[in-house]
Amino acid sequence: MSGHSRPQKPQILAQHVLARSRLFAIEEMQLRFSNGVERTYERLAGGGRGAVMMVAMPDPEHVILIREYAGGLHDYCLSLPKGLVDAGEDIYQAANRELKEEVGMGAGTLEFLTELTLAPNYIGHKMSVLIARDLYPCQLEGDEPEPLIVETHPLAALEHLILHDTLQEARAIAALYMTRTRLQQDTL
Amino acid sequence: MSGHSRPQKPQILAQHVLARSRLFAIEEMQLRFSNGVERTYERLAGGGRGAVMMVAMPDPEHVILIREYAGGLHDYCLSLPKGLVDAGEDIYQAANRELKEEVGMGAGTLEFLTELTLAPNYIGHKMSVLIARDLYPCQLEGDEPEPLIVETHPLAALEHLILHDTLQEARAIAALYMTRTRLQQDTL
Repeated sequence: MSGHSRPQKPQILAQHVLARSRLFAIEEMQLRFSNGVERTYERLAGGGRGAVMMVAMPDPEHVILIREYAGGLHDYCLSLPKGLVDAGEDIYQAANRELKEEVGMGAGTLEFLTELTLAPNYIGHKMSVLIARDLYPCQLEGDEPEPLIVETHPLAALEHLILHDTLQEARAIAALYMTRTRLQQDTL
Repeated sequence: MSGHSRPQKPQILAQHVLARSRLFAIEEMQLRFSNGVERTYERLAGGGRGAVMMVAMPDPEHVILIREYAGGLHDYCLSLPKGLVDAGEDIYQAANRELKEEVGMGAGTLEFLTELTLAPNYIGHKMSVLIARDLYPCQLEGDEPEPLIVETHPLAALEHLILHDTLQEARAIAALYMTRTRLQQDTL
């Protein structure tokens, strides 16, 4: 195990937006590394107020998954409920609102699990993951073009869902493994 | 557990590139869902030949991590060695080349572990994860602006690295948990 401290960050010599759409902003940065090497980097700017992903557990053995159309892949995929933090919300309020919109459930208990990055070399996006428990029925209207398919699976089926279903999203897989580890620690 | 088959995909009524930079292409899609609802979606097109991420193990208990500058976050982060598949390469050749460039090691054995998506609702990117074993010294010149910091950590320290270091990248965390599970299964 190494005792490295963080190295000296490169200096940002210049920075501007190359292109902006409704959802994305592509930035260009001119960087000078601490060894003097200069490079031009491109990145997607991070989304304003952040995002949340919820591991919602109706009981200690099961977890709620969403099966929805994923435009990036033009296919239906399994994932966890998630969404952007709206203006004026903290991550707990956003998590509860998204659960009500996507799953039709509120959570009596929300526990912060971790913060995940997407592709830190190119994307400035971070997502907070919360474990949601003490669920109760409460439906809010969402903005989905069609009803989401809400499924309940055993947390123990994680490997099966990865191998034999469409659970391939790294953030959901990381969140579910971390939840399993957290629950094992809780019962020690 | 549910027996849902995949629902009917929405129809793509129109599709065009809104903006293109050196690294990114933002696409707009006009969709009609099977219930008749029409929506405009934006997405980042998937990267051409794909990408690879390597869980390189010098022995059955340890894994090689990379600490490098991540432009998306403008900070140094821990992750796994990874890179794009070049023209004419398969994922095994790309994995071995990237390991030689980033870690200074070749792999005698490469085992496909899984394919991970990034943010399938918005990004058409997939990454193949391979476990690399039987490592031997072999350095190829990479295109990094400064030398990468190569570290060896116990796979058992995964939770510590997430909690107390800068291991936050969902794909790396998912890959390491899946490797741990695979190794446990192998020893049963």
